[in-house]
Parts: sequence; structure tokens; C-alpha cells
Amino acid sequence: MDFIQIAKNAKQVSLKIAELETSVKNKALNSIAEAFKTKKNEIFEANLQDLEFAKTLLNEGKLGKSTFNRLKLDENKMRDMIQGVLDIAQLDEPIGKVLLKRELDKNLILTKVSCPIGVLGIIFEARPDVISQISSLAIKSSNAVILKGGKESINTNKKIMEIINNALLTVDGFPQNVLQQVFTHDDISQMLKCDEYINLIIPRGGNKLVQYIKENTKIPVLGHASGICHIFIDESADINMASKIVVDAKTQYPSACNAVETLLIHKDFSKKDELLASLELNEIKLITSPECWDMEYGDKILSVKIVENLEEAICHINTYGSGHTDCIITSNSKNAEKFMNNVDSSGVYWNVSTRFADGFRYGFGAEVGISTNKTHARGPVGLEGLTIYKYKLAGSGQIVDDYVKGLKHFNHKDLV
Amino acid sequence: MDFIQIAKNAKQVSLKIAELETSVKNKALNSIAEAFKTKKNEIFEANLQDLEFAKTLLNEGKLGKSTFNRLKLDENKMRDMIQGVLDIAQLDEPIGKVLLKRELDKNLILTKVSCPIGVLGIIFEARPDVISQISSLAIKSSNAVILKGGKESINTNKKIMEIINNALLTVDGFPQNVLQQVFTHDDISQMLKCDEYINLIIPRGGNKLVQYIKENTKIPVLGHASGICHIFIDESADINMASKIVVDAKTQYPSACNAVETLLIHKDFSKKDELLASLELNEIKLITSPECWDMEYGDKILSVKIVENLEEAICHINTYGSGHTDCIITSNSKNAEKFMNNVDSSGVYWNVSTRFADGFRYGFGAEVGISTNKTHARGPVGLEGLTIYKYKLAGSGQIVDDYVKGLKHFNHKDLV
Repeated sequence: MDFIQIAKNAKQVSLKIAELETSVKNKALNSIAEAFKTKKNEIFEANLQDLEFAKTLLNEGKLGKSTFNRLKLDENKMRDMIQGVLDIAQLDEPIGKVLLKRELDKNLILTKVSCPIGVLGIIFEARPDVISQISSLAIKSSNAVILKGGKESINTNKKIMEIINNALLTVDGFPQNVLQQVFTHDDISQMLKCDEYINLIIPRGGNKLVQYIKENTKIPVLGHASGICHIFIDESADINMASKIVVDAKTQYPSACNAVETLLIHKDFSKKDELLASLELNEIKLITSPECWDMEYGDKILSVKIVENLEEAICHINTYGSGHTDCIITSNSKNAEKFMNNVDSSGVYWNVSTRFADGFRYGFGAEVGISTNKTHARGPVGLEGLTIYKYKLAGSGQIVDDYVKGLKHFNHKDLV
Repeated sequence: MDFIQIAKNAKQVSLKIAELETSVKNKALNSIAEAFKTKKNEIFEANLQDLEFAKTLLNEGKLGKSTFNRLKLDENKMRDMIQGVLDIAQLDEPIGKVLLKRELDKNLILTKVSCPIGVLGIIFEARPDVISQISSLAIKSSNAVILKGGKESINTNKKIMEIINNALLTVDGFPQNVLQQVFTHDDISQMLKCDEYINLIIPRGGNKLVQYIKENTKIPVLGHASGICHIFIDESADINMASKIVVDAKTQYPSACNAVETLLIHKDFSKKDELLASLELNEIKLITSPECWDMEYGDKILSVKIVENLEEAICHINTYGSGHTDCIITSNSKNAEKFMNNVDSSGVYWNVSTRFADGFRYGFGAEVGISTNKTHARGPVGLEGLTIYKYKLAGSGQIVDDYVKGLKHFNHKDLV
């Protein structure tokens, strides 16, 4: 099928599923989880095919070790994948929420109601478990989805999608084409041009992929290209807390987008040498060159800069940061407040590791990804980020002319 | 000053004003209103210059009558303009609202707080009163603004901005460069490329302008290109109500984006001929050609189509509409509900004129414009559409490693 037809099908079904009942959506999710349990060996087999090919690339140096690891599905990941689907079924219904109910005048009632965005285009790399996560979130939020995964995981992706769509066929009232998959690079080009049918693009992958997508589409893009997170050690920081947090933020998962990349230290912090020594003890390589202020290492490497004061730290972060997550370590609450108000990032932290920037840790139950956008959704994005709203106005024959002429008047009385 | 410097100044000051106190912002607004009162004759004089030149264009047929009218500032418009500024001062503070407060674990508190978007680029045509409205909304929401008005109103625009910025100079603690103005077509090109410093573009003008902007920028655009609004007359519609509403929606202000453009009539509506006759009596020209299904007339012209049933009406609207505002006239509440759930528009109306789609009529106090976007803000956009949020996380030394290893557990307890 050509891409435009796929996109049209998605658009068409997106209008149908806007109204799907919660029970049908949850039945769909439970049915997917059940199918994963029954057919997990088929998935492992497909995954083995991908892994074998990937191993060749790994040995030839054409694929990184971390990409290889992300590609691999084992029993643990499968269990998490299944639990993830079941968890999303448990979340509150995000569609049809009354966000505002207002009497504009007698028998003229305005209601602002949450509704799905429409059609999502998902472009992701390596991690095949993304399919299951995004598909579940799309079902729960009544959005149609077109997925394009990385070619490294093509067999796994195909198998997972086949199992999901077969499971959905057994659910009464659940229409076809809600979840569709495309495979070629040409499909990406077409997806990015398809603003007539696709309402939101969500890229999940490295800086290059996200940057490419942002450069090449008029469709809104939800995500982050880079995660250049900072920790600022204020004059009054506790040395033990500082060391513990920086080590966690840098080494707990160095390739995560919320890992710290730059350490800013107040010039009057007296335990500076002690702190740096403790980081080196934890196998963190320290770099102090100004060319590194915008580096995202994804490794146990950390840029370090001594700053004059809090203001310089804030200014540095707002200049070189990526608006992802930045932290101050201080025992001065005034400074903490100033830092959190003035640093223009999706997450502004005080005395806590940047690694907490995550939808699950925030208690959203699931996460589409992390956004550094300044519109729509910012920070870890849960189900709410896959919704928008419409205004319903129910009247009894009112016309604007009566209000313009002063024959009638609005009373604007909130009912909810 | 070159555009990039203007944009940098805007970005810089946007970080400062994120924290401005409500009292300072309201003082600024009151000071602007006061200055308008004192110096309105200067504005009228500048407006006269623009009007004289526009009259030449009008006589040469190079400018439409309605554009000419929008350009003209009289005592009434000036009073509305001043009242508009004062009204915005009265609105609730939109910044710093706590949208969520959650204990993730003991002494680990997540707060979701509303904050400004940053720098807005406003591109508008003809109506010079837009400057005052947008500037006031920007001040109240702590956003910096770069305004580019139409060349037809250049003298009025310059004068209004001069008065505003002089008024702001007298306000203690209000920084410079919050409101800046640019004038050339080249400035527009540069603004659209300036995604490094500008966070949101809001176009206020005709279809061509908005379309051009959407085609030529990666920056999110908030607005609507066209307003192809529909009214569907269901089988059970009341003829008097139908006639009254359609006449209002078409003639009360034909060039408004929320005016109706297409009338869909159920084939079994028995008073069809009577309805059409009453519309013609009200000087509405009726057109029934399929080439007109996507026409936005901006005049007393109406496309008319007979449809088989509700489903065809919904399908027609979702195919040819612009997602702006669409209405069903019916006494069947089931049909009304189906229409409002299935029509994918920012406003879905029942028995009420489409002309109600407006921020003031919805009780938002002020309006940035009307959005047909499916992300960020949809429908009439008030102050809330000029805000986003950040997550503040205050801890006491927590690290992620403890939670991953199961030494600590999240409790996710909502505090607000």
C-alpha cells in the first residue's frame, strides 16, 4: 500500500475511534497483553533474527554496543512490556474529560472537552518495545498511529505488530487501521510531508534523527533533540550530597537524555577539589574546555566549569543547555528558588539527581517521551500530551446580533 | 538594529520577565491605558496619515473596503482599545499557577507550574488595535514580543508602540525590549527562520498570509488559515430557529472567520424551500456547485448542499471544513450529540450561531486569536494559550539508583 493511502486510512479511522468506549479500549489492551504472553516465543525468534544480523554489524563496528543492547528483547523486557500494556489499561480515561463548563447565558452552555489529537506519526530507532508502549498509549488516547521503526529491528517490529493487530481483530467494536506500520526511508520522507493527514510527529531516537525530522516537516514535532543537563554546585552545597547526586546523574545510565553533561561549580565552594576527586574515583572523566559546553557525551565524561556566582550559572545553562533538566545543589533556599524560576528548562531541580526526569518516576504511569518544546507539552509526556480539546456549545437558538445590539447579555457563570 | 539583535534582546528579556510581579505587570498595563487616554489625538493624527494613503489605494481598487474600515481608528475603537488593556489587567495572573503538586517520595516534591512561552512573533495586517491587544496579553503573560504590522498602518503602528514603550519606561522594575516592532518584509523572512530565539508565531490576517507563514517556518504557528464553517439543518430542525441562526451566522459580520460558508440540509427537512427563500430575502446569495465546498466567501454568499443524512453531513464537514466551528440545528439530542462528538472541529455547536466562536463571548476576557491547531491550543485562545509549564522537583539528596535497586519506592501522593 502506498503511504498516502495508509495516511488516509489512519485519518479516517481516527475520526471513528474518537468515540470508542473505555471498556472497548481496555479490552483491546488486555487482549494485546494476553497475546504477548501466549506468543512471546514468536517474538523472541524474530528478535533472534535481528540480533544475528546486528551481531555482524557490531563485529564490523557499524553498530554501537548500546544500540545492540537496546535491540535485544529478553524475558525481563518482555515482562515489562506486558506489564506496561496492562498498566496503561489501568490509567484514567483521558478522552471526554470536562475541562470547563460555563453558562454563557441562560440555556447557552459551553463545555471544553478533552479529545484525541488524531493521527500520530512515530519514528523510532532500535528499541522494539517502543511499538508496544506507543501503540498502547495511542489506543488509550483514541489516536491512530503510523509507526516507522529502525531497520535493525525490522523482524521484531513486524512480529510484534502482527501479534498486536491480530489481537485487536478479536475485540468487538475495535476498527482496523488504528495501528499501521511502514518500513522504508521513503516512508519517512512522505510522512514528514503529510501534514494533511498527520497531526503530530513523535521521534524517539538520537540527536541526528530528531534534528533531521525537525528540519524537514511542518507537522508539530514532540520530543527532544538533545539532553544537555547541568548540575550547579552552589557555595553552600553539602559535599556528600553533591558527590552522590553527580555520580548518580552521570553514571547510573550515562546514555540517557537526563544524564548530566556539565558540572558548574561556584568559585567559593570550598570542597571543590574533594568533589572532583570523588568523581574521578567513580571513573568519571573530567573536561574543562569551553568547546565542550554543548557536548552530550552519553558516556562517563563530564564538562566542568567554575562560575563566579549563581547568575553566571543560570546564564550558562540558558545559553548552552537544551532546556531538558537542570539542577542546583545548595542549602540556600533563596538561591534554589531563583535557580528554579530563572532556568528556562522543562525540569528545574533542587538537591536531586537529574535522572528523575521520567514519566514513570513522575507518576504518569507511562511516557510518550520527553519534550523540550515550549508549546503543547513539556518535560515527560504522558497520556495527556496525546490529547487536545474541543469546545461544545449547546444553545436554544441564540444569535450574536442580540448580544452585539445589547438586547441580551452574557453572564459567564462557571458550572464546574 | 538588525533582526537577529532584536530577537536576541527579546530572548534575553524574556528570561528576566518570567519572574515579574503581578503588581508590576498591572501597573504597566494601567500606565499604557492612561497614556492612550492622554495621547489619543496623536494616534488619530498618525492614523489619518495612513488613511489618506489608503484612500488613494482604495480609489485605485488596490485596497478592499473592509481592509480600509479595519484600518480606521475612531473614538469608539479607541475606547474599546483602552478598555481592553484595563480588562487584561483585571484578569487572573496566568504565571506561577500550580497545576500539579505531588509527593514522589518523602521530601521529594514535584510541582508543575505555569510559565511563559518566551518570545512571540506576531505578524498582523491592517488592524492597528491588534498591537495594543497583543502587547497587553504579552505583558500579562510575561512573554516578550516582536510585532510586525501591515504597511498600510505603519504610521499608526509606530505611534501606538511609541506611546506604549514610553509609558512602560515610567514603570519601576519593568525592563526594556519586552515589546519590539519591525517593519520590513525582510524582517518577516528573518523572523520565520529565527527558531533559535522565537518560540511561537501568531499570524493575524488573511488566508494567504497565514498559509505563507505556515509554509515557511519551523517555529510553531498558532492560528487559522481559513474559516470554512458549516451549519447542518437536520430533519427535525425548527424552521424559525434555522432561518434566524443562518442569517446571523452569514450576515452579522460576513468577513469574520466564524461566519458560516456552507449550509448542509437534510434531504427530508420539509421546510427546505421556505428556509432558502428566507435566506434570499435576507440578501444571501445561494450557490449549489460542488466546486464551492471549500470556499470562504467573506461575503453574503452561501454554498448549499442537500445531504442524505447526518453521517453525510459529518463526513462532508470533516472533508471540506477547516476545523474551525460547525453547527447542527436539530431537536434530536442524540443527533446533536453524535454531531458534536464526530465533527473534528475546534467548536461544535448545537442550535446556536457559529459567530459565538470568540474569546470574549466564551468569557476569556481577551483573545490572542482563534486556533484550528490540534496541538497546544485550539479554538479561541486566551491568556492560557500564551503559557506553558515547567516541572520543579525539590529533593533532599535523592538518587535514581536507590529506586532502580528497590532500596526506595515512590509513593506518588498528590498534594493539590
